[in-house]
Amino acid sequence: MTVADPLQAACPVPFAETERVLLGHGSGGQLSAELLRELIVPALDPAGDRAVLEDAAVIQLDGVTAVISTDAFVVKPIVFPGGDIGALAVHGTVNDLAMMGAQPRALTLSLVVEEGLPLEELRHVLRSAGAAAAAVGVPIVSGDTKVVNRGAADGLFVTTTGVGVRTPDATPSATRGRPGDVVVLSGPIGLHGTAILSAREGLGFSSDIASDTRPLHRLVQRMVEVGGSAVHTLRDPTRGGVASVLNELAEAAGVGVELDEAALPVPDIVRAACEVLGLDPLHVANEGVLLAFLAPDRADAVVAAMRELTEGAGTAVVGAVVADPPGRVTMRTLLGSRRIVDMLIGEQLPRIC
Amino acid sequence: MTVADPLQAACPVPFAETERVLLGHGSGGQLSAELLRELIVPALDPAGDRAVLEDAAVIQLDGVTAVISTDAFVVKPIVFPGGDIGALAVHGTVNDLAMMGAQPRALTLSLVVEEGLPLEELRHVLRSAGAAAAAVGVPIVSGDTKVVNRGAADGLFVTTTGVGVRTPDATPSATRGRPGDVVVLSGPIGLHGTAILSAREGLGFSSDIASDTRPLHRLVQRMVEVGGSAVHTLRDPTRGGVASVLNELAEAAGVGVELDEAALPVPDIVRAACEVLGLDPLHVANEGVLLAFLAPDRADAVVAAMRELTEGAGTAVVGAVVADPPGRVTMRTLLGSRRIVDMLIGEQLPRIC
Repeated sequence: MTVADPLQAACPVPFAETERVLLGHGSGGQLSAELLRELIVPALDPAGDRAVLEDAAVIQLDGVTAVISTDAFVVKPIVFPGGDIGALAVHGTVNDLAMMGAQPRALTLSLVVEEGLPLEELRHVLRSAGAAAAAVGVPIVSGDTKVVNRGAADGLFVTTTGVGVRTPDATPSATRGRPGDVVVLSGPIGLHGTAILSAREGLGFSSDIASDTRPLHRLVQRMVEVGGSAVHTLRDPTRGGVASVLNELAEAAGVGVELDEAALPVPDIVRAACEVLGLDPLHVANEGVLLAFLAPDRADAVVAAMRELTEGAGTAVVGAVVADPPGRVTMRTLLGSRRIVDMLIGEQLPRIC
Repeated sequence: MTVADPLQAACPVPFAETERVLLGHGSGGQLSAELLRELIVPALDPAGDRAVLEDAAVIQLDGVTAVISTDAFVVKPIVFPGGDIGALAVHGTVNDLAMMGAQPRALTLSLVVEEGLPLEELRHVLRSAGAAAAAVGVPIVSGDTKVVNRGAADGLFVTTTGVGVRTPDATPSATRGRPGDVVVLSGPIGLHGTAILSAREGLGFSSDIASDTRPLHRLVQRMVEVGGSAVHTLRDPTRGGVASVLNELAEAAGVGVELDEAALPVPDIVRAACEVLGLDPLHVANEGVLLAFLAPDRADAVVAAMRELTEGAGTAVVGAVVADPPGRVTMRTLLGSRRIVDMLIGEQLPRIC
C-alpha cells in the first residue's frame, strides 16, 4: 500500500495504483478530473444515464428551468486578506450559477465546525456570509450545523448550494467555443491564490495582496443583455487557475485556444509572489474574475459593456479560439515563441478555497 | 478562556460565557437551538427579514413552489451496520424534503475528503449514495470534491442538498399541531443511534442492531393522498431523538404533547443497549421513522394506509396533542405516573449523522 506524499502529487500518479486520496485529487487540475471521471461518476451513476457532478446543473421543475450548484469550502486560514470563508462561499456559489447564465434565487449553508472554534470566529464569518448574500440580493433560506470533536476537522468547513433561474437568452456552455471566438478575462489574475498563500506562510506579501473574491452575477447579466447568445462560454477560473479551466473548455468544445502573454492581466505583485513561490500565475486560483468566449461580431460591444461595471473594469482580450490543435491551449510568449499551457498537475496550493 | 470539556456539555452552559463551540452545539438539542437562535440567525440575517436556516425552506421560482434542504453528514464510522454515510446523506435529505410534503427532484453532493482515505472506501460510499438515489428515483445532478491534508478532517464529510416540489394538498407545518391531534410514530425508535454507537465502541451489539436509514418520501406521499390537510405536522426525529423533536413541535405550535410509554415502539435490543450505555431511547437518533400529528377525524385512515407500506408497517399511535401545558411534552409511564420529557441537553452521541 502506497501512502501518498504531497510532494509526489506533483507528478501524475497512475490512478489504479494510487489506492488512496491525494491532495492533488482536490486541486481542480488533472488528478481532480481523473477522480471525477474514473471513480466518482461511475460510482454514483453506474448506468451512465444521468447528468452527474457538473459544476452546476440545469434542472426542470414543473416548467421552470432552474440551475443548481454546490461547493465545499475548506480554505485555510478562514479569514484572509480581502475576505473570509463566509463571503467566499457565497460568492463561489453565486458565481457558479452565473457561469450558467443564471441569477441566484436562494442559497443554503451547511457548516462542519470543529469543537473549540471560538464563537467569535464563527460569528465573524457568518456575518460576512450574511452581508455577502445581502449584497447579492439572495436569501440564505436553509442550513445545517454539525460539530465534530477536536482534531476531526480544521476549524470550519462551509458548503453552500445555490438555486437560480436562467436569464432569458443566456445560453453559455462549455461546448460552445468556436474558432474565431474572442477570449476575454474580466480582470487581473492570481490575487486570490497568492493572498491565501502569503497569509498562510507569513511571506510578508499579505499587506499588499488581497483576494479578489466578489460576485459576478451582475457582470454576467450585463454581458447577456448586450451579447445574448454571442456569449458562447463562461467560466470562473478558480482551483487550477486560467490554464486548467481553458484546457477543460478547449477539450469540451473540441477547439484550441491561443493566449497572448503580453495581454494577460497579471499584477506586478502577483508576478513577484509567484516568482518567490515558484508558481505559474496561470495555475493560481481566482475568485472574482471570469473567462468568456465571445462570438467575434458582438465581442467589442460586450467587452465595452463589461468595462462599465466595477467588477469588469479590468476586462482584457487575452486570446482567441482556434481550430487546431483541438483540446490544446498554447501561448505566444513575450519573447515571441509559443508554449503549451497545461492543466495543473498535482496540487500546487491545497485548501485555497 | 474556558476550553470546553465534552462532559461539561451535559449541563446547560450559559451561552455568553461559553466562548467556544462545544460538541453539544451540534447535538440537535437545546445547545443547538441556542446556537441557531443566538448566533447563527442574527449573524446571517441581522435585519431579521428573511427566513433563515429552517430544516427545509419553501422558495418561489417563477411560479413554482419548490422546497430546498441541506445537511452535512459527519457520521463515524462512515460504514456502519445497516448503512453508510453515502446512503444516510441521500436518505436524510430526501426525508427533510418529505417532511415538508415535497417529493425530491434533484440532489447535489459535496465531499470533503481527508488525504489518505482509501479510494475503495470512497468508491463504496459513493456507490451506496448512487444506489440510494436511484432507489428514490432522484438524480444526483451536481457536486464538488475538496481534499484536505491528513489530520484536517476525519475521513469523509458529505453535504447533500435536495430540491423538491410540494405534493398538491400537502400542508404540513411545525405550527399546525392542534389539541386533539393523534400523535403517530411510523416505526421502532433508537436503532440508528444505538447501531452507530455500538459499532464505534465495539460493544458487541453491532451484529444485532442495524441503522433504520431509509427514505420516507413514499410514506409521506401516501399519507397525504389519504389524509390531505389532516396531516398537520411531519418531522423525522433524527439528532436529539423523539423527545427533542416533540419539544420543538410543541413549542412551535403552542400546544402540549402527551405520550403513552406503553405504546412507544422501542425494540428490546435498543432498550438493552440504552441501559448499558446510559441513554434514554427518546433521545437517540433515528433515520428511518417519522412523527406525525394527525387530525383525529382522518387519523385512523392515515394510520391504516401507513401500515400498508413496508416503511410504515410498524406505525403506532403513541400519544395525543393536548392544550396544556403549552410547549411541554409529558409521558404517562408504565407505572402509571407522569414525567416531563425534556429536549436533549448537551451531546449524547457526537457524530451520529
